[in-house]
Amino acid sequence: MLIDGKRMCGVWIEADGWSVGIIDQTRLPHAVTTLRLATLEDAAHAICAMQTRGAPVIGAVAAYGLCLALRADASDAALGRAYATLLATRPTAVNLKWGLDEIVAAVRDRPFGERVAAAYARAAAICREDIANNEAIGDHGLAAIERIAAGKGPGGRINVLTHCNAGWLATVDWGTATAPIYKAHLKGIPLHVWVDETRPRNQGASLTAWELGHQGVPHAVIADNTGGHLMQHGLVDLVITGADRVTAQGDVCNKIGTYLKALAARDNGVPFFAALPSSTIDFALNDGISEIPIEQRGRDEVATMTGRTADGRIETVTVVPDGSPVANYAFDVTPARLVTGLITEHGVIAATREGLAAGFPERAGRLEGA
Amino acid sequence: MLIDGKRMCGVWIEADGWSVGIIDQTRLPHAVTTLRLATLEDAAHAICAMQTRGAPVIGAVAAYGLCLALRADASDAALGRAYATLLATRPTAVNLKWGLDEIVAAVRDRPFGERVAAAYARAAAICREDIANNEAIGDHGLAAIERIAAGKGPGGRINVLTHCNAGWLATVDWGTATAPIYKAHLKGIPLHVWVDETRPRNQGASLTAWELGHQGVPHAVIADNTGGHLMQHGLVDLVITGADRVTAQGDVCNKIGTYLKALAARDNGVPFFAALPSSTIDFALNDGISEIPIEQRGRDEVATMTGRTADGRIETVTVVPDGSPVANYAFDVTPARLVTGLITEHGVIAATREGLAAGFPERAGRLEGA
Repeated sequence: MLIDGKRMCGVWIEADGWSVGIIDQTRLPHAVTTLRLATLEDAAHAICAMQTRGAPVIGAVAAYGLCLALRADASDAALGRAYATLLATRPTAVNLKWGLDEIVAAVRDRPFGERVAAAYARAAAICREDIANNEAIGDHGLAAIERIAAGKGPGGRINVLTHCNAGWLATVDWGTATAPIYKAHLKGIPLHVWVDETRPRNQGASLTAWELGHQGVPHAVIADNTGGHLMQHGLVDLVITGADRVTAQGDVCNKIGTYLKALAARDNGVPFFAALPSSTIDFALNDGISEIPIEQRGRDEVATMTGRTADGRIETVTVVPDGSPVANYAFDVTPARLVTGLITEHGVIAATREGLAAGFPERAGRLEGA
Repeated sequence: MLIDGKRMCGVWIEADGWSVGIIDQTRLPHAVTTLRLATLEDAAHAICAMQTRGAPVIGAVAAYGLCLALRADASDAALGRAYATLLATRPTAVNLKWGLDEIVAAVRDRPFGERVAAAYARAAAICREDIANNEAIGDHGLAAIERIAAGKGPGGRINVLTHCNAGWLATVDWGTATAPIYKAHLKGIPLHVWVDETRPRNQGASLTAWELGHQGVPHAVIADNTGGHLMQHGLVDLVITGADRVTAQGDVCNKIGTYLKALAARDNGVPFFAALPSSTIDFALNDGISEIPIEQRGRDEVATMTGRTADGRIETVTVVPDGSPVANYAFDVTPARLVTGLITEHGVIAATREGLAAGFPERAGRLEGA
């Protein structure tokens, strides 16, 4: 998508044909800095320090990290060490391991001399597949938005509420939750997005608002507390969020606070959609609330806030009393009963066991037979 | 209540017998600074700059502001000017006008020579009444907590969730939502409080957590997004918030985000209480969602965050992209159907037209006859 009118992706190959470019997300929204990753260590550090974040783009950067490692040493031993190094950067992100496994599968049975080219080819394919999935999610979500727009009549502005960043920065391009928004905006549907700040890490205020601003999509940042009030007053037409994991019965695990917005949507008759590639669906799990372990993160994310001072420095300030404990749960689970639909690359699927089984018969059936 | 083991109130008369002491809430939680108000202008500035905030304590400080004005000039003309000055500081706070009217009524028909003493006497009575109301709210709320504790069996810890600051800093003493918590803690009931950060002004993290810490009440600060997850996992036994206005049918207007917690409480079978003096009930209104105008505040409250840097300076940082608009609704309305009970100085009242009419027959009847 666009930065200052120039087309950018979440990860790319530099003009030299082999080094890897990313946007340093830790500097956003205050500075647009690109980083050039030339070694395995560069790639591992970028993921570990969250210079690049978002499950799909991490999978792609990790895949390219193996390519960089193979350039230096294409042996099995070096490949194994690089795999372990990258896997340890963010042990909970499913796409990371998937991206690494894809590269290993692509090079394992090849002579050393062919491995680098094969790895780069597979990594590029991973990126193309991610973009295609997100475009398909965008097209199916666009159809849902168009149905809602038709109900409002000509010229009626569609108000979308989103939470966290499931945007193009978190993917190779388009994003998941943002893909339908970008598609609708590009098609000329009048659209306005309420962007939840998304405490404690502020991905909404820092990343989603920044993305939407550069794409020219009208939006406003709101405190996470605000969505219920907006829905009570008819100011939200639909909610679209991303998802970190979806169970076989349609429960949606996503950024903490998503459940509260889904409750408000249900209480006010507002459709609530989660947008995700089908790889996010975990057919091995059923009850998301009891079965999905929720990561607890460190104190500083809640106790401090980082931003730009009046004179342009990036500064971190403490906003909680020194003696006060903090609890920092990173995700919550929205029960399937609150989800209007799952926007996937295969279409909008009902968040029910039957809907998911019908949408993905091969994957659902494989587990039932197990 | 306690600061560093020393007993303090939200407002007090200094040792000189006439000047007025307050805590500078804009410096909390990083510094405990008291301010001495010696003139009308001092009092007006303290309210205007939110050095003192919270409807009940503002009413008391405004009353004392008139006392200070009368010390300088006890004439009707000076009284009128002082009244207008103080009323203009925070035009939306109902208690402010009430406190001013009480002083005017106490001095209006007296000779100039008696006015100062009469004004101080009425202001002191306003403070005593506020403390007595909050103590009564505390006792009735304590009974509700004890019933829940009995259900958990001996030694079971009670988890309370609260939003914003309806604490002693916002009143003369005890607070409203915090009074039952302090009473239960003083009685030895094992208690733990989840403190919503309360974006955008952070009154939970800055004020409520600070109060609870100094009182020795176990607590943890959480992002506003967290309450639903905690309730899903049985980690909240009751919710207690304050209220800014309650309608005749029991709708509760309170800090933005309260409605989302009430929805989560209902979805998980958790009791949801609002604690308030009966003066907060507005029998002239019925449907809170359509009838209560919701204040929209400035951009900076959402776009910036103020806190303490590592080297001890108080600094304000921007956390939203420069070009991104912001929406800042200050309150929302929780429909009566989600409210388990209203904890008032007269007892726990059902949040229904019938409950409120039975609890306050004179006030409810007066309007029905009108």
